[in-house]
Amino acid sequence: MAQLLREVGHTTFKDENQLKTAPHLCNGDSGHQQKVLGDNISDDSFATLAFRNLVFDVCMQNGGGHGGSAIGMAAIGVALWKHIMRYNPADPDWFDRDRFVLSNGHASIFLYVMNHLVGYDAWTMEQLKGYGDDKMPGFDTMAHGHPERDAPGVELTTGPLGQGIANAVGLAIASKSLRAQFNKPGLELVQSRIYCMTGDGCLMEGVALEAISLAGHLQLDNLVLVYDNNQVTCDGPLEWINSEDVNAKMRACGWAVLDVYDGSDNVDAIVAALEHAKHFHSQPVFINIRTVIGYRTSVAGTAGAHHGGFDTESIKNSKRAAGMDETKTHSIPDRALKYFRGCRGRGMAQQMAWNEKLNRYSTLHPEDFGKFQSRMAGEMGDYENTLLSLDSKQFAGLGTRDSNGKILEKLWNVCPGLLGGSADLVNANKIKYAEDDVFHPLQGYQGRYLRVGIREHAMAAIANGLAAYHPQTFMPVTATFFMFYLYAAPAVRMGALSDLQVIHIATHDSFAEGQNGPTHQPVELDSLFRAMPNLIYIRPCDGEELLGAWIALLNARKTPSILSVAREHYSHVPNTDRNKVKLGAYVIQKRENHSLTLASCGSNLGHVVAAAEVLEQDGQRVNIISAPSLDLFELQEEEYRKFIFPLDGTPVISVEEYVPTTWARYATASVGMYSFGHSGSQEANYKRFRLDCDGIVARVKEYLKLLNGQDARTAGWHKI
Amino acid sequence: MAQLLREVGHTTFKDENQLKTAPHLCNGDSGHQQKVLGDNISDDSFATLAFRNLVFDVCMQNGGGHGGSAIGMAAIGVALWKHIMRYNPADPDWFDRDRFVLSNGHASIFLYVMNHLVGYDAWTMEQLKGYGDDKMPGFDTMAHGHPERDAPGVELTTGPLGQGIANAVGLAIASKSLRAQFNKPGLELVQSRIYCMTGDGCLMEGVALEAISLAGHLQLDNLVLVYDNNQVTCDGPLEWINSEDVNAKMRACGWAVLDVYDGSDNVDAIVAALEHAKHFHSQPVFINIRTVIGYRTSVAGTAGAHHGGFDTESIKNSKRAAGMDETKTHSIPDRALKYFRGCRGRGMAQQMAWNEKLNRYSTLHPEDFGKFQSRMAGEMGDYENTLLSLDSKQFAGLGTRDSNGKILEKLWNVCPGLLGGSADLVNANKIKYAEDDVFHPLQGYQGRYLRVGIREHAMAAIANGLAAYHPQTFMPVTATFFMFYLYAAPAVRMGALSDLQVIHIATHDSFAEGQNGPTHQPVELDSLFRAMPNLIYIRPCDGEELLGAWIALLNARKTPSILSVAREHYSHVPNTDRNKVKLGAYVIQKRENHSLTLASCGSNLGHVVAAAEVLEQDGQRVNIISAPSLDLFELQEEEYRKFIFPLDGTPVISVEEYVPTTWARYATASVGMYSFGHSGSQEANYKRFRLDCDGIVARVKEYLKLLNGQDARTAGWHKI
Repeated sequence: MAQLLREVGHTTFKDENQLKTAPHLCNGDSGHQQKVLGDNISDDSFATLAFRNLVFDVCMQNGGGHGGSAIGMAAIGVALWKHIMRYNPADPDWFDRDRFVLSNGHASIFLYVMNHLVGYDAWTMEQLKGYGDDKMPGFDTMAHGHPERDAPGVELTTGPLGQGIANAVGLAIASKSLRAQFNKPGLELVQSRIYCMTGDGCLMEGVALEAISLAGHLQLDNLVLVYDNNQVTCDGPLEWINSEDVNAKMRACGWAVLDVYDGSDNVDAIVAALEHAKHFHSQPVFINIRTVIGYRTSVAGTAGAHHGGFDTESIKNSKRAAGMDETKTHSIPDRALKYFRGCRGRGMAQQMAWNEKLNRYSTLHPEDFGKFQSRMAGEMGDYENTLLSLDSKQFAGLGTRDSNGKILEKLWNVCPGLLGGSADLVNANKIKYAEDDVFHPLQGYQGRYLRVGIREHAMAAIANGLAAYHPQTFMPVTATFFMFYLYAAPAVRMGALSDLQVIHIATHDSFAEGQNGPTHQPVELDSLFRAMPNLIYIRPCDGEELLGAWIALLNARKTPSILSVAREHYSHVPNTDRNKVKLGAYVIQKRENHSLTLASCGSNLGHVVAAAEVLEQDGQRVNIISAPSLDLFELQEEEYRKFIFPLDGTPVISVEEYVPTTWARYATASVGMYSFGHSGSQEANYKRFRLDCDGIVARVKEYLKLLNGQDARTAGWHKI
Repeated sequence: MAQLLREVGHTTFKDENQLKTAPHLCNGDSGHQQKVLGDNISDDSFATLAFRNLVFDVCMQNGGGHGGSAIGMAAIGVALWKHIMRYNPADPDWFDRDRFVLSNGHASIFLYVMNHLVGYDAWTMEQLKGYGDDKMPGFDTMAHGHPERDAPGVELTTGPLGQGIANAVGLAIASKSLRAQFNKPGLELVQSRIYCMTGDGCLMEGVALEAISLAGHLQLDNLVLVYDNNQVTCDGPLEWINSEDVNAKMRACGWAVLDVYDGSDNVDAIVAALEHAKHFHSQPVFINIRTVIGYRTSVAGTAGAHHGGFDTESIKNSKRAAGMDETKTHSIPDRALKYFRGCRGRGMAQQMAWNEKLNRYSTLHPEDFGKFQSRMAGEMGDYENTLLSLDSKQFAGLGTRDSNGKILEKLWNVCPGLLGGSADLVNANKIKYAEDDVFHPLQGYQGRYLRVGIREHAMAAIANGLAAYHPQTFMPVTATFFMFYLYAAPAVRMGALSDLQVIHIATHDSFAEGQNGPTHQPVELDSLFRAMPNLIYIRPCDGEELLGAWIALLNARKTPSILSVAREHYSHVPNTDRNKVKLGAYVIQKRENHSLTLASCGSNLGHVVAAAEVLEQDGQRVNIISAPSLDLFELQEEEYRKFIFPLDGTPVISVEEYVPTTWARYATASVGMYSFGHSGSQEANYKRFRLDCDGIVARVKEYLKLLNGQDARTAGWHKI
């Protein structure tokens, strides 16, 4: 039976399309018979060979890597970089370039070698030689295990599977939006098309499936998803884990589907499909290209080609086939170099032509040109003065989600780059939009409110794509319940890791979220986001702090934020100050000779203020700290941090309806949650979990009794 | 344009199937014309009416809830509970019952009202009256905002969309596995079929799409997904956010698709489809049932029916139509009660017949009967003695992922309930399996190794379904890189929230994961899982501790675990003890008059031991704590906790390559990570981030210099 299954995996084909790949699998074992082709083959074929030969060397230079896919994708690469994509190696940031996303990021060699061949200045041979190196401190390279977007010619950091496809959908939305807002007949400033490469893995990931569904719905015909269909994954034949009809699935999602059957070699066929793809309207295009992983090596067509090295005989054969010296590594035949470097001159010419068009545009449409320039420069509008000038009295009595909705409405008019929406909870998230401001083909993509559907993970990954289009040209906004940012967390992380400014609006950040119960109550989620590097988690307690929070998060140009707001209104908190929010934590109540400090934020602070009053009636002198963002607080000077939490031996007690983790850095005790929540009303839950005024007072008193006058620092941190 | 879009949303239909639902939407506005039908209608129709009328009352009793879907799904409920499903309200835990999962968990009223009508003892009318109540402490009810699985008749806690579909796939795998292992011709002990209800939302979620793909691949013909196709979501018409051909998509994923066009009323049609579904082989079945949300009320067919209340006139009309007193609430006509309560007698008879079959089986197949009984009793095999008797010397020099692979291999033979696998990283996760032990139709579902594909989120949610089948009948195992448990985190959380014992094997829990770079390096993920209630995050440092970790996690019958293991081998750690792992933290090096304490775990501990040696040469006297699980440590008595971290004024320094959050509870300073990782070799990254021996020594010395003899407790926590 075991043998049977293995055979099934390798050689059974379900439909005709798959059948047509069979001869190529055979090539896998016939690498040794590869003929010397040299000058007798076409430029494209020669370039494909030369590309593979450099991939072999880069993969083998440090004992192996993820080379197999890159070998299989060689002809696809030649087709895209030589014949299809508009880009300029001499100016990787050219605004109207086509964008390429390597969603199967483990095949990073593919991108690195291509970037070198077409002549990106930064992608020297020395850089390529860093691939797979130990990278001891002092030595660095851009040729990381996965592409990282600080490198020229790398649009997005990829690796965690599926993300890249959703990023590409974001890029396509960005391009569509700019086209709609700026292009004029005959003066199409924005023509960028989005090409995304995917393997079998990304197409199984939920985040990709969500994004694919939305891309079809939005009819993004500027998006091409190129499927490196090699029928092999890490563990074995694809048939072991997947047997769906991927073409039918894509069609059902509203995509046009094109097939290429001999994608390991046939550059012409791939170019023809990619050209064809440019002529579809109202449908994104999926090109299903059959390739052989590790083509013409001893591991061709098997999982063995996924990661590791290649046999030297196959490499030698491949070099011989190109008429190259098989004893030399990292060499590029002149013919191939000339062929690839031609892309650089072409790209410069393309960009020059675009510059001329821009000049004409500036003369004919000076007003729109000004706006376009502003978007290209990443100018975000005068949000700061808007936020500083708003009177926060208008927010009195509102839950922070409501106040936030009102603020966002103002910002929407001020910041032209804002684009995004809610995952089908727009009324709960309190995001207002005009119906003629919906981003949708029926409205010609003029709108900026994006109906993302019930697709939280893709929502955040799409936002990353929007942000990556060009710095601050878009200011992407997402929204859902705080709890469901756990669905989106892998994409939120990728944004933080990639320095992409995205604003995630997380409402219902409390167990007072309307009786949905523990499935909707985020008692532990803050711990993830507060620990995540380069992410601002910020939880303002009222409208005044919200204004400061927006200033802080909009000012953080390379950092995404989670703006955590509450459903319910709580009692008034005195002395909040938008100007102090950027400090992360500040004093809102100061007592001479204080006997204890209470620190809190968000919807808990109102209860803390009430509890402090009761404790003071009882003889305590209570300082109160509002700490909307521990992330921002950590960035402050030590002196300020010690001023806020003075380490003088008096108790410092944090109060929050989350499991306290980061708080233990500053507090001597924490009033927190130590279980999941409960389905109950606001009042009932605060009472049940002893986080209302009475509960806080009682818990603080228990702690003080336990301390019994001891220096709070010496008693250790207490869970109360 | 705005108006146009709204109209499009409401009235445009893309294909014939959708067109056929149009007349039903019209019914929405004709509620007032509903005729008095009373005794003239069939039992099914009458029961459907009575069901709706009780839903109305339960929804309205506290000012509204999620009633609209339940109203639309009434006929589906009648078809399932009255005509199709095998279950016994008198014994909700009957082993061979069909399982029902309400993936659209917000429609919980549907399940509660049905459980009451068919006569579950626990689901009294008083319980129903708790729905929507404030639930002040002291008052409790099972009628939570979303179904929670501690209630009889609720198989799984649902609410976060998409999870339920993946849970149902897990239940279907469980049933298939038991059938394969125990059924004999004519004595089919296991016949349970799985019914899962879904709305539009779940079908957009990535976790569901992953699970759907896997279910088709596995040919789970014991699974029926019932689609309440009401074309409306929270925010508006479904067409605003989704325009895919869902039937074609399901077919492409290997599912059989059946259509029902008049699903709000036509019980016969639904029953016929469900009966038909029983006769498919090798395909799970998707039944696309067109319904009208809030059927025959003023908000019928609109987003307004999704959440909130109903107009009193429609409710009165509905009661009148059933010949009921419109002034009375929460009443059930005798005719309906008799109809529904018949299910109870039938269920008891079904279970009795099954018991007889079990008797015959015990006589004819005593050996298998013994095994079956053991599985029903949740006996997990003598894992404890197996783990206690293994010699950990065999693990010397191995990375913990390798040692873990060897241990799992032993356990696989001892624990018949173990079932699961890796998300296409089996060689990296070091999980060995025999090819004839693969769970696959070609092997008759005999195997226990599940190839889940590149579907991390569904993998964890499916594991929850397996665990929920019956307590400890299955012991589900999942595996991937630790970093990718962020993809799976929403499902891991649902397991913790639902008391489901699942073992998640997280390998590569370090930046020494093989040069993949920061996308694969989990510097902040421990913070999430360490904060998550009812989850054991455990990070053993060697094979000896691994044995203890497995004992701890297998003994935790209502708690899932993340077993965090490393790719690389590190230097030997002395005095580790499997028997002490359950304490969470324990002393591995004790010095008289210690001058400082170092605490660590996992792959960092070896470096700490080396660093301690250097520090001792420098005059320090260093205690070392191995802390494999801070979660287990938190469960210990205060006395023990104070023994481990004595609060005597000497420095306590935690060392871990993660952002330290929870550590601040115990340590006076933390050597940790404060950024994302880097693509580099093991050695390079430990050096780069100053977490090798030299780095630790240097950082500790910096801290000691800064302390300059001060009582470490009074200096506050330090990030070093």
